[in-house]
Amino acid sequence: MADTSRTELNHLGEFGLIERIASRIQLGQASTVKGIGDDAAVIDPEGLHQVITTDMLVQGVHFDLSYMPLKHLGYKAIVVNLSDVYAMNARPRQVVVALAISNRFPVEAIDELYEGMLLACGAYGVDLVGGDTCSSISGLVISVTAIGAAPREALVYRGGAREHDLLVVSGDLGGAYMGLQVLEREKAVFNETGAQPDLVGHDYILERQLKPEARKDVIDLLKKLDVMPTAMIDISDGLASEAIHIARSSALGVRIHDEKLPIDPSTFQTARDFNLDPSTCALNGGEDYELLFTISQADYDKIKGNPSLTVIGHITDKASGYALVDRQGGQHELRAQGWDAFLRKG
Amino acid sequence: MADTSRTELNHLGEFGLIERIASRIQLGQASTVKGIGDDAAVIDPEGLHQVITTDMLVQGVHFDLSYMPLKHLGYKAIVVNLSDVYAMNARPRQVVVALAISNRFPVEAIDELYEGMLLACGAYGVDLVGGDTCSSISGLVISVTAIGAAPREALVYRGGAREHDLLVVSGDLGGAYMGLQVLEREKAVFNETGAQPDLVGHDYILERQLKPEARKDVIDLLKKLDVMPTAMIDISDGLASEAIHIARSSALGVRIHDEKLPIDPSTFQTARDFNLDPSTCALNGGEDYELLFTISQADYDKIKGNPSLTVIGHITDKASGYALVDRQGGQHELRAQGWDAFLRKG
Repeated sequence: MADTSRTELNHLGEFGLIERIASRIQLGQASTVKGIGDDAAVIDPEGLHQVITTDMLVQGVHFDLSYMPLKHLGYKAIVVNLSDVYAMNARPRQVVVALAISNRFPVEAIDELYEGMLLACGAYGVDLVGGDTCSSISGLVISVTAIGAAPREALVYRGGAREHDLLVVSGDLGGAYMGLQVLEREKAVFNETGAQPDLVGHDYILERQLKPEARKDVIDLLKKLDVMPTAMIDISDGLASEAIHIARSSALGVRIHDEKLPIDPSTFQTARDFNLDPSTCALNGGEDYELLFTISQADYDKIKGNPSLTVIGHITDKASGYALVDRQGGQHELRAQGWDAFLRKG
Repeated sequence: MADTSRTELNHLGEFGLIERIASRIQLGQASTVKGIGDDAAVIDPEGLHQVITTDMLVQGVHFDLSYMPLKHLGYKAIVVNLSDVYAMNARPRQVVVALAISNRFPVEAIDELYEGMLLACGAYGVDLVGGDTCSSISGLVISVTAIGAAPREALVYRGGAREHDLLVVSGDLGGAYMGLQVLEREKAVFNETGAQPDLVGHDYILERQLKPEARKDVIDLLKKLDVMPTAMIDISDGLASEAIHIARSSALGVRIHDEKLPIDPSTFQTARDFNLDPSTCALNGGEDYELLFTISQADYDKIKGNPSLTVIGHITDKASGYALVDRQGGQHELRAQGWDAFLRKG
């Protein structure tokens, strides 16, 4: 089938591509002095501290183009970086994007990718101010660096938790991981039998995997509730791993109660269908991009009953280590088994 | 032969690797509030504007590990980004590094890469404050983002050139390109005959290719000479391409005199040995990382005779276009034929 809408990358060249991308970008941040089009972008910090974080997504490691639409991939590439900025209690303002892409992709594929990235930028009020686009011998690689801003005194680090602080998580857990399981299963079925994927009834967990959101709303909510977390991290590698990060950085211990873990019914049911333990999925699944934070017990009344926030444990002394309490009250060592980019594939 | 110094990446895991890297980093910038070890690094802008730039190096496109030592590669990956910061007349302060690397590389290879990166950071007084390291299905990909700072009024853009301004370039041109030609030739000979590379007498151009430097010294010099460029860019894609960038961004024309092009004797001789025109190599070679800038004619006396700076032409009105004047006085259209990442390979 001839594809009349296909433009070869070589026809456009690097400068043509940059101009094509730049023409679609609208800058909205007052702090953006200069966007794409010079040796570097220029930012006015407006008296605020700047935070900077970078994440790379690699084809075949972090995503599979056989079920990940390019537009979703672009959206996700931006969101996973913004999530890190929010986890500092800062506000993302700018991103720069470096892209290595095979010549086999038509220009329209790059358009789709940028469409997703710019959609995320628009949704979170962030400017795409620079980048680098080059060819790749094999797979697609997307590297995004996000810049955010906050008053120095508002910044929240991983290491600020204190003993007896409550451990709180936003949203629910394990959904992105179960979404990935469904996609992998349907891909395997398709490869074996040619049967079309059956994704009915899995909307929520598929969206958690394919189009995650960063919890800007939770940062807004905490400000509104006048709750200042003592420590915070975003959940990209799984709850267990991130809880241990907070405890270790704070030189303390942590205890999580299995029965408190927030798990969506569709995540729970799908885990059961896969003969997986829903709690294990919640603890080690990864890619949920929820916020995990600690608050003083004195702030408990401010968050009590809020549907977006769940108290799942508390901070203990260092000697108590990292513990998981099961539904029968038995205590186990909490271990980070999740999502290690080197253990996944390849 | 058993390699006893080889540590498998899988043994270390992502967090082990991050700790290994972090343990070697010493922060030196007063503006670095928080380096590696949280969701994001934190920077105190100290009242200055921030510039941000990103560059990606892809194996098989930008470098060939058969002749590029990993330590040099790490050094170069940092330098090419710092060059962009200097080209804004700003000072680099922080870098973040995202790395996709095959599991086939031992941990010692990553050590070498970081050794080179940290060497460059030390040489230029820059802190490595964050990053992301993940596995890659095939080649090595390095994405560096550099942050710099400058007072708003010190920033120099591409678009500030004025008619009659002098066009000035630092150092000499074409060396990095000729270094690459020598390396490619010796690789081809080795692949055909197994003969060891003969690199004798090519030290200068090989260093230009394998271990380029960013022209911090030129920025220092201009400050000392009290010369404020009206426009500036660094030469990564070749002089012709960058001169056109300045002219186009400034909505003006540019005229370059062939006889003025600064070419090192070893570059010149090697070009002749390869039956290449030295001027063409200087105009389109790429990767020289020299600075190209425009100054007011009133500043000419300040730079006159300086061995680091050469006046190679001037800015004309827009209608005069982009011109190259040959040694006989003939005028030709200046064209950007250099270094297009999409045209090189793959």
